[in-house]
Amino acid sequence: MYIRKHILNIPFRCYSSESRINSFIKSKLMSAEDVAQKFPEQITIGASGFTPAGYPKVIPSAFAQRIKNSKNPENFSINLYTGASTGDELDGVLARTGRMKLRIPYQSHPDLRKLINEGKLNFIDMHLSHVGRYIREGIFPPIDVAVIEACDVTPDGRIYLTNSSGMSGTYLSLAKDIYIELNQAHPLEMKGLHDIYLPELHTGRPINIDYVDDRIGTPYVRVNPERIKGIVLTDKFDSSKGFKQPDDASFKIANNILDFILHEVEYGRIPKKLLPFQSGVGNVANAVLACIARDKRFNSIEMYTEVIQDSIFDLLDSDKLRFASTTALTFSAQGQIRFFKEINELKSKFILRPMEISNNPEVIRRMGLITMNTALEADIYGNVNSTHVLGSSMMNGIGGSGDFTRNAYISIFMAPSIAKGGKISAFVPMVSHVDHNEHSVQVMVSEQGLADLRAKTPKQRAKLIIDKCVHPMYKDQLNDYFQHAQRVSFAQHTPHDLKQALSWHVRLQETGSMHPDHQQSQQPTSKDTEKAAKKMDETVPNKK
Amino acid sequence: MYIRKHILNIPFRCYSSESRINSFIKSKLMSAEDVAQKFPEQITIGASGFTPAGYPKVIPSAFAQRIKNSKNPENFSINLYTGASTGDELDGVLARTGRMKLRIPYQSHPDLRKLINEGKLNFIDMHLSHVGRYIREGIFPPIDVAVIEACDVTPDGRIYLTNSSGMSGTYLSLAKDIYIELNQAHPLEMKGLHDIYLPELHTGRPINIDYVDDRIGTPYVRVNPERIKGIVLTDKFDSSKGFKQPDDASFKIANNILDFILHEVEYGRIPKKLLPFQSGVGNVANAVLACIARDKRFNSIEMYTEVIQDSIFDLLDSDKLRFASTTALTFSAQGQIRFFKEINELKSKFILRPMEISNNPEVIRRMGLITMNTALEADIYGNVNSTHVLGSSMMNGIGGSGDFTRNAYISIFMAPSIAKGGKISAFVPMVSHVDHNEHSVQVMVSEQGLADLRAKTPKQRAKLIIDKCVHPMYKDQLNDYFQHAQRVSFAQHTPHDLKQALSWHVRLQETGSMHPDHQQSQQPTSKDTEKAAKKMDETVPNKK
Repeated sequence: MYIRKHILNIPFRCYSSESRINSFIKSKLMSAEDVAQKFPEQITIGASGFTPAGYPKVIPSAFAQRIKNSKNPENFSINLYTGASTGDELDGVLARTGRMKLRIPYQSHPDLRKLINEGKLNFIDMHLSHVGRYIREGIFPPIDVAVIEACDVTPDGRIYLTNSSGMSGTYLSLAKDIYIELNQAHPLEMKGLHDIYLPELHTGRPINIDYVDDRIGTPYVRVNPERIKGIVLTDKFDSSKGFKQPDDASFKIANNILDFILHEVEYGRIPKKLLPFQSGVGNVANAVLACIARDKRFNSIEMYTEVIQDSIFDLLDSDKLRFASTTALTFSAQGQIRFFKEINELKSKFILRPMEISNNPEVIRRMGLITMNTALEADIYGNVNSTHVLGSSMMNGIGGSGDFTRNAYISIFMAPSIAKGGKISAFVPMVSHVDHNEHSVQVMVSEQGLADLRAKTPKQRAKLIIDKCVHPMYKDQLNDYFQHAQRVSFAQHTPHDLKQALSWHVRLQETGSMHPDHQQSQQPTSKDTEKAAKKMDETVPNKK
Repeated sequence: MYIRKHILNIPFRCYSSESRINSFIKSKLMSAEDVAQKFPEQITIGASGFTPAGYPKVIPSAFAQRIKNSKNPENFSINLYTGASTGDELDGVLARTGRMKLRIPYQSHPDLRKLINEGKLNFIDMHLSHVGRYIREGIFPPIDVAVIEACDVTPDGRIYLTNSSGMSGTYLSLAKDIYIELNQAHPLEMKGLHDIYLPELHTGRPINIDYVDDRIGTPYVRVNPERIKGIVLTDKFDSSKGFKQPDDASFKIANNILDFILHEVEYGRIPKKLLPFQSGVGNVANAVLACIARDKRFNSIEMYTEVIQDSIFDLLDSDKLRFASTTALTFSAQGQIRFFKEINELKSKFILRPMEISNNPEVIRRMGLITMNTALEADIYGNVNSTHVLGSSMMNGIGGSGDFTRNAYISIFMAPSIAKGGKISAFVPMVSHVDHNEHSVQVMVSEQGLADLRAKTPKQRAKLIIDKCVHPMYKDQLNDYFQHAQRVSFAQHTPHDLKQALSWHVRLQETGSMHPDHQQSQQPTSKDTEKAAKKMDETVPNKK
């Protein structure tokens, strides 16, 4: 395999399989197929992984195969809990068994998405900061097995995680049985990156993280070793496709954001040393970091975020990353290789935290973050839809965007102004679903420009958004709605014509475009709208 | 005046005007009219007051009179910042000058509301936890004068506040000039109730409140005494109408909530000693406390909230209030008299905190609150509208409901299932405005029943809400929409028919009722819809 070969060729190599397989591990070794045989037919799995990083890669496939081979596949039912979305080796293979019944708390796999939107799979789209509590309190069914990727396990039950922390700590503490995928592709020097601290319920005790690099926990998850029922050896890399060169629109959005941040520094609203950044996943987020890396006006930045992608290397190369706290390192194969190679230097610049901490509103609010997340669509008054195509079809989920936005120091939403070659405008009269409302959305930015919505009335916001963010091809149309709404609205605080507020979405659904000029085309079929939605999917970069 | 007479008749009396008017105060004494003359014509006022509690009561009237008497009233323009809504002596008199140009961050005065919805006054409806920062950062115009009600002022510049803390500390620290209304209706024993601590920007330092009764500040606001330009003597009570006996529906809602809380205690999700309560303002909130007071299953409760009303006396009488942290004591005249009379005992059970602290997301999240706020309307998927009638007309504002809901341990929304004798259903296919979305609304309750929405898919939530919360006269109609939406929806995760999603609101606007059976009546006039909205206003108890 290319990746393994590549790794074996590089001079850095601290990790032979002999060195880490201690007598305890040896005593627990099983094949993935043997583990799969031990699973109950009605199973709730708590898996490691947050984005395609650090998720189990062989046991789920073996379990899927067992279901496939079963004479009574209908006897199986799977509840799957993870940190966020994962890779095809977990979400894909289990989705395709057709036996997944419950999935929390986030997903981005096309097979899962299809099941969800056909109404065949219960997906609970929730704030990531709520997950730990809900499971610990028994609001969700209890966890039968934890399936966790680790890079080392000690005889006294210390489990060292890999590329993500996610919910692993909590699932390890709650599961009846524990199965480990010991992934030898990871150098043992990964040990020490994680800072595992799980807040207790109802204590009122503060989480003592005041700065991005504060450590308050342990570098491992400790469990009673007797609860570890099996260990499977693997050497597979995470399947993240990683870095895609940001497009022109993304760079324009990024530059608009950087100009705004420097403007805020000038006015003393952001300190000169800046504030820690949180950044969603995808092209625009990558473009922001790439722009910071090459922009002489920025010297040093900190991150307190959920996901670090390959774009971090731009910051490392330009020596501008002071420190990054995250719950996942979601690298391409090349990125993973580089990270492993430089792990001894990089260890001092990264912490991987449990999702309960990376997404903790208490810590987020205290620290004061600049948050940057992607909008699927936004309306003239500043409400943001991050999750639902045409108000009904689930894209991925709210993920951590609510945790960060709601308690941000400055919350920024980004969207390319059009999608599908102009058939969809990201800015509409009224969004078809609200994930972040006007009160919590402070800055809206597209490649066209940036609207600072703070301390504005709804009508002032509408003028700004139409003026600064909307694509020229939709500007008149949106302004027409705004003027019309002011003429017919029941009241003038937030003028709306409720008969027409959702008409752009209805037009998209009926004609395949939000633009009236596109309507002369043939009567659309349901396939066309499905295609439109799919295309819309692709324009949303924040697929975790 | 009745109230003064009543006070003078009660045996308790620690506060003669002689005792508190020290030489410093004497040197600063002015009439309200003299103060009003000193105000610039273009003025930004930062006033004390949070709800009709602790707001200035004579200087604003004098300023309004000055504008009225002016030959060029159009030269005046007023920006008014407060804690939340206030009394007629501030909001009413200044609204009626017609010269108010900007009002933040919350209001509930009919004269203001009219101006806002006619588009004649810029009202910024915002999270209360954002107010302090926005002003300190210069996002809003700077404050010319702070007009603050106090019960004592020392020669070295210690200002002791009265019935609310609100934004007074921040406005005192930022204003160019300070004017005090020294309200002698308040006993000097009020000194010590407040705990003034103003968080700095960008420090990353935690706010060290772990328990509701933790004190971290001073009992006064300290200013340079030279900045105090005048002191006006008053003896007026707050104008809160106070306690209205909750109606039957409110008691039913309250009992549904208490049963739910005890159910959660039974399942170990709420500790036996309970969690601190936050409660909105109004009938239902009062009913909850009244029910706790007389319910033998509850022994002792704590509050971490914005507003305490007369209903707290029920808890005091039943010896069930362990401690209450708030930013306002919004009592009726009778309540104020009682509180003053018993101040020496009660001081150990209350803290008044600045709004920056009472509404601080960091502290709210850490403590884990049970929050109870009122919905104007909610939809089948659990999204809540707290602010906008028919999506366009501002009622009062989001106030603190977002600060509390977004970081609550359990967030409960309450609404009587119908309003206006059944012409309005509180539960609709899609809300016309979203203040709290499906991700943050955990429990929905009406007098019909309670729906626990946690860990449910949108469709499961819809079934529960229709089953448990909706009034019988709308149950079939709402279920019909839900079934119809599933048949025609673009996708099955959150089924909607975007053509009909807002049709109930359109029907209300066009016919005066959401119910099709009411439609045979005469063609409605715009007056009718105005009346409907007014009536809708009255059903919303949380007018701060």
